[in-house]
Amino acid sequence: MKDYLLYIKQNRGNYLRSLREYISIPSVSADKRFRKDIDRAASWISMRMKKAGLEKVKAIATVGNPVVYGEWIHHKEKPTVLFYGHYDVQPPDPLDQWESKPFEMSVRDGNLYGRGVADNKAPHLSHVLGIEAILKKEKILPVNVKFLIEGEEEVGSANFPRMLKANEKLVKSDVAFVSDGIMFSDAPVIEYGLRGLVCFELAVKCLKKDVHSGSFGGVVDNAPMVLSYIISRMKDRKGRIRIPGIYDKLRKVGLGEQKILAKSETPTSEILENTGAKSTFGENGYKNIIRTGARPSLDVNGISSGYTGEGMKTIIPSEARAKMSMRIVPNLKADYVKKQISTFIKKIAPKTCEVSVEFPDGGDPVLFDRNSKEYDDAKQALKETFGKEPKMKLVGGSVGAVTDMKQILGINSIFTGFALPDCGMHSPNEKLPIGNFLKGIELTIRYLKKLA
Amino acid sequence: MKDYLLYIKQNRGNYLRSLREYISIPSVSADKRFRKDIDRAASWISMRMKKAGLEKVKAIATVGNPVVYGEWIHHKEKPTVLFYGHYDVQPPDPLDQWESKPFEMSVRDGNLYGRGVADNKAPHLSHVLGIEAILKKEKILPVNVKFLIEGEEEVGSANFPRMLKANEKLVKSDVAFVSDGIMFSDAPVIEYGLRGLVCFELAVKCLKKDVHSGSFGGVVDNAPMVLSYIISRMKDRKGRIRIPGIYDKLRKVGLGEQKILAKSETPTSEILENTGAKSTFGENGYKNIIRTGARPSLDVNGISSGYTGEGMKTIIPSEARAKMSMRIVPNLKADYVKKQISTFIKKIAPKTCEVSVEFPDGGDPVLFDRNSKEYDDAKQALKETFGKEPKMKLVGGSVGAVTDMKQILGINSIFTGFALPDCGMHSPNEKLPIGNFLKGIELTIRYLKKLA
Repeated sequence: MKDYLLYIKQNRGNYLRSLREYISIPSVSADKRFRKDIDRAASWISMRMKKAGLEKVKAIATVGNPVVYGEWIHHKEKPTVLFYGHYDVQPPDPLDQWESKPFEMSVRDGNLYGRGVADNKAPHLSHVLGIEAILKKEKILPVNVKFLIEGEEEVGSANFPRMLKANEKLVKSDVAFVSDGIMFSDAPVIEYGLRGLVCFELAVKCLKKDVHSGSFGGVVDNAPMVLSYIISRMKDRKGRIRIPGIYDKLRKVGLGEQKILAKSETPTSEILENTGAKSTFGENGYKNIIRTGARPSLDVNGISSGYTGEGMKTIIPSEARAKMSMRIVPNLKADYVKKQISTFIKKIAPKTCEVSVEFPDGGDPVLFDRNSKEYDDAKQALKETFGKEPKMKLVGGSVGAVTDMKQILGINSIFTGFALPDCGMHSPNEKLPIGNFLKGIELTIRYLKKLA
Repeated sequence: MKDYLLYIKQNRGNYLRSLREYISIPSVSADKRFRKDIDRAASWISMRMKKAGLEKVKAIATVGNPVVYGEWIHHKEKPTVLFYGHYDVQPPDPLDQWESKPFEMSVRDGNLYGRGVADNKAPHLSHVLGIEAILKKEKILPVNVKFLIEGEEEVGSANFPRMLKANEKLVKSDVAFVSDGIMFSDAPVIEYGLRGLVCFELAVKCLKKDVHSGSFGGVVDNAPMVLSYIISRMKDRKGRIRIPGIYDKLRKVGLGEQKILAKSETPTSEILENTGAKSTFGENGYKNIIRTGARPSLDVNGISSGYTGEGMKTIIPSEARAKMSMRIVPNLKADYVKKQISTFIKKIAPKTCEVSVEFPDGGDPVLFDRNSKEYDDAKQALKETFGKEPKMKLVGGSVGAVTDMKQILGINSIFTGFALPDCGMHSPNEKLPIGNFLKGIELTIRYLKKLA
């Protein structure tokens, strides 16, 4: 590796020039006005992948933004690694809070500044550059690689699963490598599981129209009160979900895994600071990392009924609605959870009203096999690159592409990242330490060599 | 009275011409574009009052629309009746549902049609015409009378109490007479009590900003869930308010009063038809008239939190709000109820959040002395005019002016009405039977004579 480390050092200027070019393209996926820049970014990364020595590079069209594909497949007996990344970025707003221009990369105090520098242009570019380095020096990669760089991650990756299904043969791989996460400030990370999600919408209709609370207060039911009653029956004030069948099937987190996860524990003080909460609220007897990673959670995301403008309007609203979501963990399946929710609502719904529940969205949780060669190799590569044992973590949310690759391609992801917690991924002054960009290149080389 | 009945018959044409003129003025108080018509209506009724023989007629200015005052005070030992009415009307929308023009009174099948014909131009005009009739025939009234015809009833009578306070001496009377209610289809009515109202706004704040339900679901509290919990603790699923101290102080409705009220019972079928409810919901063991007239009720009028647009947004909302109102009955006082609500909220509010309650509005209930000479006389006059014993009723809502006259002037109101339940007071094709307009004139004469 000494040679490679020297090589990376020598090419630092070239690498930064490349990244500066990439950052200069405002590939904002949330805003249609940047549609041309989306295409420019896709072209740019295609060009850069070709230049690095990747083959069959092409843009796979979707009904949305194209996904850039590339490969280097020259081994018959070696595994194939699928590198995932995204060339689209968050909008730069609020612009006036940037200290340098968001689409002109600048360097200050050892950090690169610019929109997309952490999320996710530098991380996935580092994989391309790592491959370039090996091919430059050895003409051959230790394993096969494929690349999928999509353009809709910041708007929900809605077209990614369909693209995977339509191109299953082309993208088939043995393991995915994703560096779109956030590392700890004191250690690298592998996120080996993600919670699933069941979204649902409750609607309570008691009356055909809003009526006067003077005339009918005391003789007809009140839709927002019925909704409040149902919601308060679904989770108690100890943070336990009261819908039957939710806790029976849960995967037990063994003592060994608990110890490993304890190293990734989020301090309560950090939660309070980040959210402004007065105290945490959740199931007793569990660490925060378990509460957010290995336990289901239930939230109301929005609620509406009746009159909510200025002043008062003394009506009994005819209906009330709540958007809710449950984060689910193995071994819960989204379909099972939906059935449990429906049954419970039906059981407790008062006879005075029509109560309905709809499920617009949902996905199963994923859990990767952390006792696998590809995980051991990744841990080792991360440890050698960052000089620290990586911490193992379970993620509270779902990351569309990572979940999709597990569910559609059936492969584990090495889900890691080089951005630090204070890199401001979706904020003004997004940054990344220059060292972490270069370590991405080193990690790519180390990982591919270990996998061989 | 025979002479008077003949006189009314002979003047039928004049009366209808007068009313037609009055109806032709679109005095819509809810729409600023009709401001000139508001003044025109005030002038018209002033003119008509003068013509009838009322004296010192004037418009009392308020910060809103003027209140028209008039009097006939020539007895030292006789009581003074204060006739209340309002010259403003509801907007005529939706216009395309009117069968004849709203501001051109028309006659069909014995009914008068036009905006304001029932609510409240014909009823209060009938009092003016009744007085005119007596003065024409006898030159002298049997008792003293005063008039207050306001112009903001349809927008909440916000300036009426201030006007009363500022003119307390001028408007001082012994009893008020208000024909702005709705009679039964088979009998006249006196509404001898009105519930009071305590409006309050609950605000729950758990976090400094909305946060991601993946990252924090399971470790922080959820504001709309806390709000739901609080709401569901305030009233149980048997329709009982669980805030301490609400039922202890209630006036007992004696067996005699219960029997009287039973004649005004609203059939459950009527409630279901008017509201579209599948079944009624309220305290067990009480008739509907008691539930809406003599028992407190608690409702959520509106609720809002988090994301309520299209699709899903998996956030934990930072805050949640509910507008609520309690209808109160004797002997509850609004201030006492506010204290009980505040104390209860404080007691049950979780420590995880800031929970606040504000009281933007409120008023005590009123109950008139139905065992009084002015009530006995009114019952007798109504019985003779309509040929049926009047039913006695308690009203679920509060009627600003009636409550104000009780609270500021300390006087009972004879709160009655000539409009039928199907007269469409706030709807297209508002109507009033011609006979009821004329009976208003007769009733005025009969009542004043009995009071003497």
